Amino acid sequence: MARYGVLGTGTVGRTIATKLIELGHEVWMGSRQAGGEKATEWAAEAGERASEGDFAAAAEFGEVVVNATAGTASLAALEQAGPPNLAGKVLLDIANPLDFSGGMPPTLGFVNDTSLGEEIQTALPDARVVKALNTVNASVMVDPSQLAEPTDVFVCGNDDLAKEEVALLLAEFGWERDRIRDLGDIASARGPEMYLPLWLRTMNATGTPAFNVRIVGEQGSDPL
Amino acid sequence: MARYGVLGTGTVGRTIATKLIELGHEVWMGSRQAGGEKATEWAAEAGERASEGDFAAAAEFGEVVVNATAGTASLAALEQAGPPNLAGKVLLDIANPLDFSGGMPPTLGFVNDTSLGEEIQTALPDARVVKALNTVNASVMVDPSQLAEPTDVFVCGNDDLAKEEVALLLAEFGWERDRIRDLGDIASARGPEMYLPLWLRTMNATGTPAFNVRIVGEQGSDPL
Repeated sequence: MARYGVLGTGTVGRTIATKLIELGHEVWMGSRQAGGEKATEWAAEAGERASEGDFAAAAEFGEVVVNATAGTASLAALEQAGPPNLAGKVLLDIANPLDFSGGMPPTLGFVNDTSLGEEIQTALPDARVVKALNTVNASVMVDPSQLAEPTDVFVCGNDDLAKEEVALLLAEFGWERDRIRDLGDIASARGPEMYLPLWLRTMNATGTPAFNVRIVGEQGSDPL
Repeated sequence: MARYGVLGTGTVGRTIATKLIELGHEVWMGSRQAGGEKATEWAAEAGERASEGDFAAAAEFGEVVVNATAGTASLAALEQAGPPNLAGKVLLDIANPLDFSGGMPPTLGFVNDTSLGEEIQTALPDARVVKALNTVNASVMVDPSQLAEPTDVFVCGNDDLAKEEVALLLAEFGWERDRIRDLGDIASARGPEMYLPLWLRTMNATGTPAFNVRIVGEQGSDPL
């Protein structure tokens, strides 16, 4: 059992927080101001291992902190959370910097020669940032076995031990160990983040957000 | 049997051109100047249905034209090919606008609120541009059955009939009909093009370029 701070009260934050409670962990959900409607309702339903408060309280509580805020607001939220509350901790960044200000489809607020993951690591040099899970919808994040075949998920970060801790959490969520792909340092977060436009168009083409990709290698070789 | 113009003499251009010859088509390979070493060698090896010349000659010859030039040079190559030689024709764009000028990893020369596919369609309003095949390496493009399971490929373009013509060609290459995904208009090319950074990092992580992704939907539902 571990203590998690989950920053963000949207679908992704609530889904992750609920899954962590189900797995036996303690969770503090953080939002801009303590006592917000969504966080309060979530904490009441989630039971005695669940608390809510502002970003700083959640970050301070967590041994591991999850960034599930809207990607374009993440840097401000993490500043509010307080860099000292995040120093030395695994910061699992699952946000996508989707910018809807120009209408649909969204563009990416950080892209090409940077990424949200890198911007967070730069802003919080003492945090151990790991990018993961941003390539699937909230439901698949915490229950990949709902899909018809095992699929792939990516981890990116500068700290190998932090990536290993995240991989163990992903395995708790049901991800197969050999399909958790270590892409390298935090700059490799550009890969999973820039995949989002393809994800969005595939969702439109297939009519469902409940999908993921499975990496397939050559016939007759060992599976990748 | 059809007549194809293939613009570009790199690995992708030569692989596509050779496959088209094997399938019984006629192919004119185009490069910046007629008589270049790679194109001449290719045409000599490929037999009597193969020719080579400059971009304009290849484009004029093709009933369908394939853009297999380096993505950052494609607009210049297509200008040389001559817009009248491309008017009304299916222009299959398989290039990626990878910019290596800043070192490794490459960035994308067109990205986020545009794409190479869109820039080509804008430059050549009378061509019927279809983006496809840029998400796999040359070998997988023309032989997807080398992979251990059926995988997915994407088509993007404003002209539904042009996409259907490309889908028939992809089927000739061995792609399964229900895994050829129509993502929508040419602006949807942002999806497959922005996937490249993830492709490159997955290649690094798995150690091979011979892979692709398979889209997996929910258990108990119809396959996507």
